[in-house]
Amino acid sequence: MSAADHSALPAPHIGTLPSGPLGTIADVAGVTVGHCTLDQGALQTGVTVIRPHQGDPYVDKVPAAASVINGFGKSIGLVQVDELGTLETPIALTNTFGVAALAQAQIRAAIRANPQIGREWSTVNPLVFECNDGYLNDIQALAVTGQHFDDAFDNASAQVASGAVGAGRGMSCFDLKGGIGNGSRVVDVAAHRYTVGALVLANFGRLPMLTIDSAPLGRVLAERARAAQAAAEAAAADASVSKPEQGSIIMIVATDAPLDARQLKRLSLRAAAGLARTGSVYGHGSGDLALAFSTAYTVPHAADFIALPPLVADARLDSLFRACADSVEQAIVDALWSAVSVTGRDGHRRLSLHDSAPDLAQLLKPKS
Amino acid sequence: MSAADHSALPAPHIGTLPSGPLGTIADVAGVTVGHCTLDQGALQTGVTVIRPHQGDPYVDKVPAAASVINGFGKSIGLVQVDELGTLETPIALTNTFGVAALAQAQIRAAIRANPQIGREWSTVNPLVFECNDGYLNDIQALAVTGQHFDDAFDNASAQVASGAVGAGRGMSCFDLKGGIGNGSRVVDVAAHRYTVGALVLANFGRLPMLTIDSAPLGRVLAERARAAQAAAEAAAADASVSKPEQGSIIMIVATDAPLDARQLKRLSLRAAAGLARTGSVYGHGSGDLALAFSTAYTVPHAADFIALPPLVADARLDSLFRACADSVEQAIVDALWSAVSVTGRDGHRRLSLHDSAPDLAQLLKPKS
Amino acid sequence: MSAADHSALPAPHIGTLPSGPLGTIADVAGVTVGHCTLDQGALQTGVTVIRPHQGDPYVDKVPAAASVINGFGKSIGLVQVDELGTLETPIALTNTFGVAALAQAQIRAAIRANPQIGREWSTVNPLVFECNDGYLNDIQALAVTGQHFDDAFDNASAQVASGAVGAGRGMSCFDLKGGIGNGSRVVDVAAHRYTVGALVLANFGRLPMLTIDSAPLGRVLAERARAAQAAAEAAAADASVSKPEQGSIIMIVATDAPLDARQLKRLSLRAAAGLARTGSVYGHGSGDLALAFSTAYTVPHAADFIALPPLVADARLDSLFRACADSVEQAIVDALWSAVSVTGRDGHRRLSLHDSAPDLAQLLKPKS
Amino acid sequence: MSAADHSALPAPHIGTLPSGPLGTIADVAGVTVGHCTLDQGALQTGVTVIRPHQGDPYVDKVPAAASVINGFGKSIGLVQVDELGTLETPIALTNTFGVAALAQAQIRAAIRANPQIGREWSTVNPLVFECNDGYLNDIQALAVTGQHFDDAFDNASAQVASGAVGAGRGMSCFDLKGGIGNGSRVVDVAAHRYTVGALVLANFGRLPMLTIDSAPLGRVLAERARAAQAAAEAAAADASVSKPEQGSIIMIVATDAPLDARQLKRLSLRAAAGLARTGSVYGHGSGDLALAFSTAYTVPHAADFIALPPLVADARLDSLFRACADSVEQAIVDALWSAVSVTGRDGHRRLSLHDSAPDLAQLLKPKS
Repeated sequence: MSAADHSALPAPHIGTLPSGPLGTIADVAGVTVGHCTLDQGALQTGVTVIRPHQGDPYVDKVPAAASVINGFGKSIGLVQVDELGTLETPIALTNTFGVAALAQAQIRAAIRANPQIGREWSTVNPLVFECNDGYLNDIQALAVTGQHFDDAFDNASAQVASGAVGAGRGMSCFDLKGGIGNGSRVVDVAAHRYTVGALVLANFGRLPMLTIDSAPLGRVLAERARAAQAAAEAAAADASVSKPEQGSIIMIVATDAPLDARQLKRLSLRAAAGLARTGSVYGHGSGDLALAFSTAYTVPHAADFIALPPLVADARLDSLFRACADSVEQAIVDALWSAVSVTGRDGHRRLSLHDSAPDLAQLLKPKS
Repeated sequence: MSAADHSALPAPHIGTLPSGPLGTIADVAGVTVGHCTLDQGALQTGVTVIRPHQGDPYVDKVPAAASVINGFGKSIGLVQVDELGTLETPIALTNTFGVAALAQAQIRAAIRANPQIGREWSTVNPLVFECNDGYLNDIQALAVTGQHFDDAFDNASAQVASGAVGAGRGMSCFDLKGGIGNGSRVVDVAAHRYTVGALVLANFGRLPMLTIDSAPLGRVLAERARAAQAAAEAAAADASVSKPEQGSIIMIVATDAPLDARQLKRLSLRAAAGLARTGSVYGHGSGDLALAFSTAYTVPHAADFIALPPLVADARLDSLFRACADSVEQAIVDALWSAVSVTGRDGHRRLSLHDSAPDLAQLLKPKS
Repeated sequence: MSAADHSALPAPHIGTLPSGPLGTIADVAGVTVGHCTLDQGALQTGVTVIRPHQGDPYVDKVPAAASVINGFGKSIGLVQVDELGTLETPIALTNTFGVAALAQAQIRAAIRANPQIGREWSTVNPLVFECNDGYLNDIQALAVTGQHFDDAFDNASAQVASGAVGAGRGMSCFDLKGGIGNGSRVVDVAAHRYTVGALVLANFGRLPMLTIDSAPLGRVLAERARAAQAAAEAAAADASVSKPEQGSIIMIVATDAPLDARQLKRLSLRAAAGLARTGSVYGHGSGDLALAFSTAYTVPHAADFIALPPLVADARLDSLFRACADSVEQAIVDALWSAVSVTGRDGHRRLSLHDSAPDLAQLLKPKS
Repeated sequence: MSAADHSALPAPHIGTLPSGPLGTIADVAGVTVGHCTLDQGALQTGVTVIRPHQGDPYVDKVPAAASVINGFGKSIGLVQVDELGTLETPIALTNTFGVAALAQAQIRAAIRANPQIGREWSTVNPLVFECNDGYLNDIQALAVTGQHFDDAFDNASAQVASGAVGAGRGMSCFDLKGGIGNGSRVVDVAAHRYTVGALVLANFGRLPMLTIDSAPLGRVLAERARAAQAAAEAAAADASVSKPEQGSIIMIVATDAPLDARQLKRLSLRAAAGLARTGSVYGHGSGDLALAFSTAYTVPHAADFIALPPLVADARLDSLFRACADSVEQAIVDALWSAVSVTGRDGHRRLSLHDSAPDLAQLLKPKS
């Protein structure tokens, strides 16, 4: 099936809330995303950078908070986010063994912008998330460098690609090709319109668990693989029943709703609901982390007092909670939908969802 | 549709793991449950007591841990459970304003059994969870008393009723009649067979969100109500689209697998996955709490050292995680399936799922 | 030594920050405290109520957060405080087995003030803390009732008594008579003056650990008791070296500085520093909890958006942190300083610090 | 004052528990420590590595847990420690901007030892802590490399140096020279003898706060500096009253007592008590983290079940809690006691405690 054919079959729309115009995290105004993709034989990996706004993230920090749904992960930066409730660098995503290189690059970039860092000013807290792309990618090569971070940063724009790009290049999801996915939802809260956008790095799940828009697609595909006796795929599908869930998922949630860090922590946890609806039970080996930030205001680095806009009352958060869960579920579907089949190290290959299920349109039954 | 007819239509089996023989939390050997139900006009409420084993829970404590998924709740006892990782009373469930009466009753019962408590020994940590049944029940009457706790405790057996009984008497779920639900799953871990059982007190959700075994039943029922212009129900269904989610759910998970408190905390969080698959996004006003305990060993009150059986390795927890999510989802379905329609205070009435959807069998399409 | 003599020896001033005019939690404008004391033979217990402001705490909630330093405790209400970051009742303190009665009384009081609670509105989250006064008090008598809560509430004023009063009546501290203590400090933050006030319910520690204003008083007193061979006291003092630390301490911190719940959680943890300086290592059996609230603004129960005053920047919190630690240490000293000797159940007796150390002035050496 | 003179004045012994024979973290059998020190003009920094045992830490993981007392810090690895309760690399300490280089080095070392990592096996979780040594060290130079980690690792032995060595080279503490410190205590629990050892990287505090063994040394030194009008030092001391606390402290606690991760988390928090007794109130800008591990057993990487020795009952933890607090306080004193004066970047200089207070013996009054 060609890429053109893919575009002919739109991904199902999750839930009943409307999407933003782009259907990406960039529907939250000011948010931009850049990818740097490594596609060189056994090196199938990359870097994705999310910029919360176009200014200096250290000087004007955005409020943020994270939920650790399953802490089998090697991110850096969350201790301070939890204490202070702000981001002070862009959000970087990469493979598990690329975290250090990106943390170093984040520090260098921050010092370039603000030479006072580590001198008159305090230091900087680099924020880097990761998933393990070791099935397709030669992760032991430690191929990710600071230059890749800089390139991804420089590429950042409001045109956000999904699929086997950036940090998503080598990722697997439900034994299929995973990667970067996007989703967004628009809701009204007391006559104000707000957007929630999600970007996920999807690298989790075993095939039989896969559920798309409530359709148990994974069971069908796993059954089919077994029936066909197609040796390699069948073995993989069969094994996937008993093999532990591995991989991970990073879920970045942006919103323009005025929320403080405590509320953003509440919001971020709702990513777990969207994730569960795709079939995940937050497997032992899956580092499932969600981070939410707001673009409604910034916290200046140097200030005695912080003026905030009126915050959404907690009792009015429900539609934002739903928007978070739906955006994340949509983003996971988008990752599967957008990814192309990829062959990586040692001949390892992950088929895209479209290549695995040419009759995808038929499998996704219309709902009653 | 009569109660007899209900029994003719079995509830769908969630997932692919087998259930235990009873399909209740009592499939975990030694666990018993007792209900005391108040069904007196405006008083539609009650008490449910879960006994982890048949001995003295203070002298032989079971390991336990809880996950607060959304902390809009008024339980008592979790601070100490979190610190020490053990239960030392039975688990009591009731309405929000009944917590104090049950805590008092738990203390009295513990002192009766061990007069040293609060004298030579330390005090006792009563554990009581709650949901708000104020729609059907005159919660302001504070009708629950210590006697109801004692009655429920005395009633405890391995024959566990579900539905509008005990603490579940006045509960609502997805704008339908909710209450007590049960589920269990059996899994093999490295050649050992373990059971996970769940008992839920289900009192959450708005109708359009309801999803049963991946079928979007709530959308159908809400649409139908609107179309019929059936005044009261339609208004309720319509309002439910925008009204905030209220209520709560308490999810008690038992297992005979040997796990310590840290692992039980991990297990308890997987209840959130099962909950999400029924349509919840952990609404702001919903106190969503899960507690997991193990019956594989006890921690003696007076001991210098604690001998443990070999614990399941974390890397082998995945099937238990799946069993937890599936048991909880099954238990929520069971609560809806088992509950009868109830009329309570001020003429408020909640229809059972069966009474709301006489064509339930048709609505739950067979899966592909 | 008479009470008049006690007043002749002022308690040492902890640290270098100035106290507020009253030296109590009521130095934070609007905060009032009421006690109800039971002093009837074997019943040596009581209730203390802290009102954050003079309005309706449910309608106008104050921001708050707690730190669980050691969770061997049976408080009620913290799950929701942690989720929502607000108080909606007064703060009640009592003995361990009085929590339920006060929770019930808090609910009744809230319903009296707002009959919509549990009907059109959601329920109410009663907040009650406790320590175990079972050495002096017949805690099994469950003597505390809702009337005692109402009486303490009605007694609330800005004239706050310390010592063996209210919830402090039966408490022990460092094997001496403990109870209620107060302290306050005034600090400037960027040209704004703020007050931090602390009220503690002190019921922790073994004699040899006692440190007052850096002086190892407890070692001296324990040594003296041993040397004197005074049978009962010596045995107690000797045993205290090896007996586990029991009891607990509740530390309530108020401030008029504009802080949000995340910042109040940070503030509340600094109570642990003040506590440690008196000799505590947060013993296993000691429920050591701190709660901080701000009176700088309120969160209305019914609102779509919450307008906040400019908040103190986190980088300017240090003087408030110090004020918290110093206020709490001062309050513990005040509890010991203010308490009179008390005889309770079964002839159990706790000597006051003054009665234990008639030469107290000499023992507290001037600092270099 | 010469180094020989320093050794003539022993540091005060904190508390009443006996020290182990070495007085270092290596009193816990099997624990070794290695330093790599950079002392090259403006580069005053280094690396310290703690090996929990002499085997492969990935294959045989030790149980561990951390307490984040103040999360203004940039460590890597704690998310997974919190989830799984084990260490799988040595513990590395360095400056804030060296974390990435050491994380990379930890990954490389783990792969060298176990080439299956990131292939057949899951990845590895590098654990690196940091403090900001930017006053003395040119932290922007990013001088720490993986080679320094390897050198420190290779240097590891049971002879553990304290002071201005390894990661401690450039650290400041109470405006004096800080660095690495050690302490240990031996306690009996139910007829079993256990050791608790602490190693700290001390880089926190302002001079007036300094308290050594309950003596307010910092006030004396700050007063003296002001009185002398010694321009630079006086200005620094004076400023220190109002300047925010910066720096950080990392507190590593080892024990041979059999504890699980939940209990180790409880133990680690008691480091906060020892820290407070030196004058800290856990200042806003201070990343105050404690990690505790046990050498009593290991958790094999590949196993279906984990056999544990009998664990110390929680009710018997108090002497271990005291040993933790005392060891940490002792280690902080040791850091100040052992460090020599150091001059670093831009002529910045930190005097050692001995050089700042030649009459130190007189200032530390004998206790009453």
